[in-house]
Amino acid sequence: MVNQVQRGDGNCQSCKSDSSGSNSGGESSKESSRCSTPVLDADRSDRLRDKMRRRMESGDRWFSLEFFPPRTASGAVNLISRFDRMGSGGPLFIDITWHPAGDPGSDKETSSMMIASTAVNYCGLESILHLTCCNQTKEKITDYLTKAKRLGLKNIMALRGDPLGEDWEEEEEGFNYAVDLVKHIRSEFDDYFDICVAGYPTGHPEAESYEDDLRHLKEKVDAGADFVITQLFFRADTFLKFLEDCRAIGITCPILPGIFPIQGYQSLRQLVKLSKLEVPEDITKVIEPIKDNDAAIRNYGIQQAVEMCRVLLESGKVPGLHFYTLNREVATMEVLRQLGLWIEDPRRPLPWAVSAHPKRKVEDVRPIFWASRPKSYIYRTQDWDEFPNGRWGNSSSPAFGELNDYYLFYLKSKSSKDALLQMWGEELMSEESVNEIFTCYITAQPNRRGHKVLCLPWNDEPLASETNLLKDELEKVNRRGVLTINSQPNINGKPSTDPIVGWGPAGGYVFQKAYLEFFTSSENVTALLKVLKKYEPRVNYHIVNVHGRNLTNAPDMQPNAVTWGIFPGREIVQPTVVDPVSFMSWKDEAFALWIEQWAKLYEDESPSRMIIKYIHDNYFLVNLVDNDFPLENCLWQVIDDMFELLDVPPELLNDVNGKRCENETEYF
Amino acid sequence: MVNQVQRGDGNCQSCKSDSSGSNSGGESSKESSRCSTPVLDADRSDRLRDKMRRRMESGDRWFSLEFFPPRTASGAVNLISRFDRMGSGGPLFIDITWHPAGDPGSDKETSSMMIASTAVNYCGLESILHLTCCNQTKEKITDYLTKAKRLGLKNIMALRGDPLGEDWEEEEEGFNYAVDLVKHIRSEFDDYFDICVAGYPTGHPEAESYEDDLRHLKEKVDAGADFVITQLFFRADTFLKFLEDCRAIGITCPILPGIFPIQGYQSLRQLVKLSKLEVPEDITKVIEPIKDNDAAIRNYGIQQAVEMCRVLLESGKVPGLHFYTLNREVATMEVLRQLGLWIEDPRRPLPWAVSAHPKRKVEDVRPIFWASRPKSYIYRTQDWDEFPNGRWGNSSSPAFGELNDYYLFYLKSKSSKDALLQMWGEELMSEESVNEIFTCYITAQPNRRGHKVLCLPWNDEPLASETNLLKDELEKVNRRGVLTINSQPNINGKPSTDPIVGWGPAGGYVFQKAYLEFFTSSENVTALLKVLKKYEPRVNYHIVNVHGRNLTNAPDMQPNAVTWGIFPGREIVQPTVVDPVSFMSWKDEAFALWIEQWAKLYEDESPSRMIIKYIHDNYFLVNLVDNDFPLENCLWQVIDDMFELLDVPPELLNDVNGKRCENETEYF
Repeated sequence: MVNQVQRGDGNCQSCKSDSSGSNSGGESSKESSRCSTPVLDADRSDRLRDKMRRRMESGDRWFSLEFFPPRTASGAVNLISRFDRMGSGGPLFIDITWHPAGDPGSDKETSSMMIASTAVNYCGLESILHLTCCNQTKEKITDYLTKAKRLGLKNIMALRGDPLGEDWEEEEEGFNYAVDLVKHIRSEFDDYFDICVAGYPTGHPEAESYEDDLRHLKEKVDAGADFVITQLFFRADTFLKFLEDCRAIGITCPILPGIFPIQGYQSLRQLVKLSKLEVPEDITKVIEPIKDNDAAIRNYGIQQAVEMCRVLLESGKVPGLHFYTLNREVATMEVLRQLGLWIEDPRRPLPWAVSAHPKRKVEDVRPIFWASRPKSYIYRTQDWDEFPNGRWGNSSSPAFGELNDYYLFYLKSKSSKDALLQMWGEELMSEESVNEIFTCYITAQPNRRGHKVLCLPWNDEPLASETNLLKDELEKVNRRGVLTINSQPNINGKPSTDPIVGWGPAGGYVFQKAYLEFFTSSENVTALLKVLKKYEPRVNYHIVNVHGRNLTNAPDMQPNAVTWGIFPGREIVQPTVVDPVSFMSWKDEAFALWIEQWAKLYEDESPSRMIIKYIHDNYFLVNLVDNDFPLENCLWQVIDDMFELLDVPPELLNDVNGKRCENETEYF
Repeated sequence: MVNQVQRGDGNCQSCKSDSSGSNSGGESSKESSRCSTPVLDADRSDRLRDKMRRRMESGDRWFSLEFFPPRTASGAVNLISRFDRMGSGGPLFIDITWHPAGDPGSDKETSSMMIASTAVNYCGLESILHLTCCNQTKEKITDYLTKAKRLGLKNIMALRGDPLGEDWEEEEEGFNYAVDLVKHIRSEFDDYFDICVAGYPTGHPEAESYEDDLRHLKEKVDAGADFVITQLFFRADTFLKFLEDCRAIGITCPILPGIFPIQGYQSLRQLVKLSKLEVPEDITKVIEPIKDNDAAIRNYGIQQAVEMCRVLLESGKVPGLHFYTLNREVATMEVLRQLGLWIEDPRRPLPWAVSAHPKRKVEDVRPIFWASRPKSYIYRTQDWDEFPNGRWGNSSSPAFGELNDYYLFYLKSKSSKDALLQMWGEELMSEESVNEIFTCYITAQPNRRGHKVLCLPWNDEPLASETNLLKDELEKVNRRGVLTINSQPNINGKPSTDPIVGWGPAGGYVFQKAYLEFFTSSENVTALLKVLKKYEPRVNYHIVNVHGRNLTNAPDMQPNAVTWGIFPGREIVQPTVVDPVSFMSWKDEAFALWIEQWAKLYEDESPSRMIIKYIHDNYFLVNLVDNDFPLENCLWQVIDDMFELLDVPPELLNDVNGKRCENETEYF
């Protein structure tokens, strides 16, 4: 239902997370061979090094963010929401570190490989996977790279990594230096990967000398590295001198400074120990006295980082800044905001979250049903080879992925079972109590136990505050058992730059048909079908229950475009459609969520589970489209007409509501 | 330039000629496998017998028209314009008779085969090709059918044909009766063709008896005929009895009465003689006295036909009427108008003329350039195997047919060389005289010699009178050497049922971006390019000369959709685009028309030819799109700005015009 907001105000995380670089607008994918709409933003088709070149040519500065893999599954879920939030600020890329101890190449939810894959495929973030080569066989490294490629990863940070012991001998067969890894990647995978290597502004601790280390860096670049990210440092001139020295010996590729906003005393100590760096005295002088005051240290760290970054940017020699986030948001975001690099309201190339997987770069149309669950849609279509030619569209039958490993972490609810029970009711007594929960979610009012309903099985995010334009109608209908899970208002030609609903390149116009999707009882559906006759052909509907009985007036089962844009010099773009064929797959998922995420919170045979089970077995999933987008949305009128038909005088209904309000204990 | 009207008022013949059955709207082609827009009207994908079934189910009466092949090439050109005009009234189909003497299966412009092919492919008319079998070998017949299939013909009227001599012997090997031909078609071509056979309400003249003839008809239907068209008759009850008798012996397929509006004394005599029919006394009584008064006879024929048709239709047993037109328009159209069967303002499934060739039935997008020359576009894309997947669109390079047999009759001008010289000037003295001719065409004013300019090489049709909304601007700019050949106004969401610009199914909305295309001098282009900088990115342009130097601001050479429609329950339809790739092919054609159709009217080396040659060699072809379709069309402002830049005070220009007006003899 966050979507009821998203569609309206376009502020959903998932929508924003595709914003990286979308402002460098313009050209479309050359590779798209289809006759339909072209991809709108160049960045989707460029590789990372091309994006950098384009930004440098346009003088458009960027930032990037480094994260390390989480230790626990719930940590992974949190990190991924962080990707969505921080992705909305418009990083050019993020990178995920590699920890040989943490089984980094495995399929575990917490592995570097899986985290990077999720960032690319589900969060739409251009990502770099770190890879260390020491103590690894060539075969193992090749396996990792093959897997990374298969998962849609396009960028590798080639590192030597830390030896196991303090000292170590060179291996004849294996890798001894990052340059060996760079050469291996180029020889085994040709030009497929963009390769990043590490630079050490104060020289690598193990290098014989600063100059010797510079030569090593030159070798890595000559071996095929595309750009350099440096180790952290504490003074701008440290980096600027290093940059000068690199240029002097003929290193011409981009060299990005690694920025480390000091966020706490311990983390600083730890990092300094690992990187064998010395903290300048003037910094230690400041923080030693306040080492137990985290807030104070962080504020200082932010100031110190901002000042250093300003110097770097003003030098004119630094096109982008790379941040060591330590997986935290506040400090880095604050620094970026003060530098003016954080994109507060990113332009969206399309109204939904674009995946960064190379094979999806020409994808430009999706069914509306997954609008609040884009990760689920991407997951279930991950095996499709062509976008959008392989799409469900008119093509006979789409092969949606099964829901079998439905519990894949990025489809899981972020809330614990206890939290869910508090939100959705420890004990349900009737369908009305379910109506109440939906209503509480809509109104953002606490439930009878005083707990806010922050999510529903179909909407992981709380309803955004901007939803007032639909809120009243939504509350009214949910209270009466029209359990809405998705909607969008109609829009008749707003500028594509509109901060709320705009998307795509400037100078265009965006349109929407009003959409409403909800669960409701068969009694309501019977009345609704009578009412809908009055609205032919203005309103298209699909009505289906869990057993798949589908009632529709869709002409010839064609998709109905409900979001489209008209742009200068382009074909029409229609990124969102109501598609009858994929609706049947969505139906399975939408009904399954009742059982998997809600009913299973309760004991077998418990009344609560029975109630959810009853709804699952007997309710219908309904979607309505008002085709007359230039007129006022008639869908609320349709629902009102349905209520009238139900032959219950409104005042009596209010009574019933009233009674429910009195003896609330009955429900929780 | 008729297009400057067509696009505006949608009244061009070619646009109307696809209207047959477009009102039985609804479903889309099941066979379309592409991801883009679906075909809008069912009839385009149905075969003739399905269209009939659909009409009978909906109680929607139809009419059809019979023509015979012309004797001369110019007769063919006239007949084809007649197809366009009469096609606009919405016949369900037309049929072309077969004359063994006239080399009917050849590639001659006048052959039955070529005329039927043109009706299908270029006029978008569902057509039936007659085929007679007597005195033909099976091989020859199979050749004819194979050729017909290749040309896109889907329907055959299977006839025995008239014997060479008065009496004839049955041939062992050959065909003796139409039933043999029906069997042959079904055995050789399975179910590919819809087959029509002839019925004789008064019995076939050579049949032993009326009953015997009915049995023959039953055999033809049992052998695989899909429907029956009858010989002409003079009394409704003659047909109704025949129909009853057919049903009685189990002939269940549609039986369509053949209507012959008496149009003249001689033609009646002739036809009666051929068909060995007797004209009822009450009819001869009326016409004998007025036999020398064609008008009187025709008026009587119209009345007589209308009355008879009314009886037939009121019987409720006649779903459609088949007219023997004798290749004339007036009488048949008048009868149809009085019966209310003539569609005065047919709904258009798309804004351009849809071809009836089966392989083109999913075609739903075309470049705007050929809007006034749809037959040329169809001709040049006739070898494309897929529509619209094989379209020029984003796909790298379209293979447009060459202009080599450019003089194919249906691409020829309808006017004679003398007529063209009168319209375009016996003798040209300067570029100004060319401006004058364009201006006269626009204003529909006679030229200096008093001749109306009814066509231009790029526009076969005179500018329709409804063009006033563009006329003033067009006149102004043409007078100053902006030689417009194509344009459309912007439209911001008019109902799809709008009589002027509407197309597609009811309940939708249609849109257009303003478009203007013209030839102009390099001086003007230099100024225009300066001006256009002010209109970025609002205005997209393509500017090219005969040598192919193309100046454009089209992003990434993408097509620009300039006509689109939003419909209930459907994806977006974008039938017209400005496509940079196909523009280069259109450029060749547009420039070639200067030489082929205009310059070559004059002697080699003559000043007139030199002037046209100069324009051909030095002018640029320009097209402009105003992307801001919700705002007022800015393209006229663009041209005004260009004129201003040319540094010539308007009043001085008027002087020049004035001078031209005085000594007009200078120009002609």
